[in-house]
Amino acid sequence: MTAGGGHAWIEGGDLFAVQGWRGAAVRAGLKPSGGLDLALLCADAPRAAAAVFTRNELPAAPVVLGRESLEAEPSVRSIVVNAGNANALTGERGLADARAMRDEVARTCGGPALVLSTGVIGVPLPLPRVLAGIRDAADRLATACPEVADAILTTDTRRKTAALRVALPDAPEAPARTATIGGVAKGSGMIHPNMATMLAIVALDEPVEPDALRALLERAVDRSFHEITVDGDTSTNDTVLLVGGAGDRPPVRRSDPRWAVLADGVEAVMRRLALAIVEDGEGCTRVMDLRVCGARDDDQARSIARAVAGSALVKTALAGGDPNWGRIVAAAANAGVPLAAQDLALELCGETVLAGGAPRDVDRQGLARRFAAPRVAVELTVGRGAGNARCVTSDLSTEYVRINSEYTT
Amino acid sequence: MTAGGGHAWIEGGDLFAVQGWRGAAVRAGLKPSGGLDLALLCADAPRAAAAVFTRNELPAAPVVLGRESLEAEPSVRSIVVNAGNANALTGERGLADARAMRDEVARTCGGPALVLSTGVIGVPLPLPRVLAGIRDAADRLATACPEVADAILTTDTRRKTAALRVALPDAPEAPARTATIGGVAKGSGMIHPNMATMLAIVALDEPVEPDALRALLERAVDRSFHEITVDGDTSTNDTVLLVGGAGDRPPVRRSDPRWAVLADGVEAVMRRLALAIVEDGEGCTRVMDLRVCGARDDDQARSIARAVAGSALVKTALAGGDPNWGRIVAAAANAGVPLAAQDLALELCGETVLAGGAPRDVDRQGLARRFAAPRVAVELTVGRGAGNARCVTSDLSTEYVRINSEYTT
Repeated sequence: MTAGGGHAWIEGGDLFAVQGWRGAAVRAGLKPSGGLDLALLCADAPRAAAAVFTRNELPAAPVVLGRESLEAEPSVRSIVVNAGNANALTGERGLADARAMRDEVARTCGGPALVLSTGVIGVPLPLPRVLAGIRDAADRLATACPEVADAILTTDTRRKTAALRVALPDAPEAPARTATIGGVAKGSGMIHPNMATMLAIVALDEPVEPDALRALLERAVDRSFHEITVDGDTSTNDTVLLVGGAGDRPPVRRSDPRWAVLADGVEAVMRRLALAIVEDGEGCTRVMDLRVCGARDDDQARSIARAVAGSALVKTALAGGDPNWGRIVAAAANAGVPLAAQDLALELCGETVLAGGAPRDVDRQGLARRFAAPRVAVELTVGRGAGNARCVTSDLSTEYVRINSEYTT
Repeated sequence: MTAGGGHAWIEGGDLFAVQGWRGAAVRAGLKPSGGLDLALLCADAPRAAAAVFTRNELPAAPVVLGRESLEAEPSVRSIVVNAGNANALTGERGLADARAMRDEVARTCGGPALVLSTGVIGVPLPLPRVLAGIRDAADRLATACPEVADAILTTDTRRKTAALRVALPDAPEAPARTATIGGVAKGSGMIHPNMATMLAIVALDEPVEPDALRALLERAVDRSFHEITVDGDTSTNDTVLLVGGAGDRPPVRRSDPRWAVLADGVEAVMRRLALAIVEDGEGCTRVMDLRVCGARDDDQARSIARAVAGSALVKTALAGGDPNWGRIVAAAANAGVPLAAQDLALELCGETVLAGGAPRDVDRQGLARRFAAPRVAVELTVGRGAGNARCVTSDLSTEYVRINSEYTT
């Protein structure tokens, strides 16, 4: 999760580290708390954009609309994000409401416009308040607005932002320069009162061709947000949006050596945001960094990693700081992937506890001490091939259950 | 879960309601508590037997051995069950230990013998103590031994038994008579400290042909234990064993009208045992009886039902008595089954909350009152065909997490 060679983190930076963006955050009256709940982001001109949306079979209205818009034209100039109401399972009316939001943003800030929503499911949006909030925010746009990162939160306990500078190599028609990548995100664990909605918006100041931007996004999401979506509880609203830069420079192509540098940078920013989401997981007291190695292919490794990271037994053992590795192996054996006991090896915090399918004698007290750390490493080798996967997960604590069972609709 | 027409429950009955069985329960020193931890069951002669074992990719040694034995010869005379050690992930030594147990039981009580184990994973069995326990139990066999149901428990808080009499219809060469079906089970929720092991042994006093017995078992398990295994966390040791009767009567065949009556009876006994397991779930405060109707086929209905019943968000809402139905629908939409919002309908406690993909106006206070009952009914209709499924699940309470995170290896 550290940036490599020519990367430099911008301390406290967010999306506004990227030139050309303005933003505002207002109280539209959607959150019962009365806090900031509507954010507007606006670029100086339309920019290439790509998004990864939820795979949930019943996507919320803004997701349906966003998919349509980006398929018709992969670019964006203005983005509205509201918290407090997901506009999900709201039928035809929900779609009309999302369209009205989009049109109001395009009218006041310039299009193409995108809508992102998070909050309670199955409750119609109070549209007049939302439209008034959009107009209010459009009047207050500023070149930096750290409160945008607050206005998009729901049960999160802290803002999640990251910004990075990367040194781009020389390229034909483009001398060496520094690019900036910045983003904001929300999400408070894999699982959430209102269905774990995870939103992230990352922008960069380097123009990138639409196909190359899409490739950049997919690679980075696979190595960041997809490694923390561990229990399959994809929300109706999950969205990760990547917006390229504007300007006269020739846009970066997939074959350009600058592409790989930008890809590493976008990945680093998204990993930092993803880790912030896990660490802010509801009731999170301990994080497990799980690697599965030697599966037949990456897909099988991912299935095993998700079975382990999604197991309530593993997550409660993690909460208890209990190196009860039998639960890890038994959960791995439930992934629907063929395994042979004699080919298995398991390491907890660097110590081998299982090899050749039989338990090793270990110093259990020393192991328990190391397993009580805030972050524990687990590596499972299954001896079938070269497939690897990684999953970072929070624990399942009594506090998690308290938050989610006491929350009322 | 009530027995129909010619069925009569035997109050407090267990496996010993079935003639020809003897049993004993002893302390072999496997449970740290020092309680009963080894049970022996012995029939007067070998009887036809069929078993459904765990689908976990790393089955425990007794499961490997049991599969081998029943494939070679589908019959059993004696059964040993130990609690406190699962003999799972114990390598070659574990298999040798399970064989030694089987041989000692066959020697002292008569074969074929089967071994069932439950308890901690990855710890070698203290074999001399186990063998001494078997000899001790063999000396104490009695025609009824209610303590067998105690000796097989782990974190369960109460014994689980059921016995039923069914009136068999006339059949060629067999006049009308009454058959008895009795069983014992262990399991304390879907998820368990030692990987949710669920064991059940059910016997009947009517001779049944091996293939017809296998069909009887599979039908009943599909409609009982498989409807509570909701989170995919299949244990390394799960076993459901069905043993037929002995005697000179011609064995019941699949085409025999008595088969359907026996099938209903075995199903009723297994449903009662399965419900007892859910209700004794760790920290269980509320049970959800979920039906999914109108899926393309039963498999898709089952996928949806398991996605809902396995969702931590749904289970915590259930713990809170919160009719937060958005979580149910959103979890259903994560099953990987195509859904269309406009075809969906959802009923909670008999009240329609969603129809045609849009929320209905409901009396939320009245609904919340009914949803606070110890058992709540949920029915999701997806409008795709005639596929149905049912899932009975316990909630996810803070007590569940406490039990599973404070348990130490």
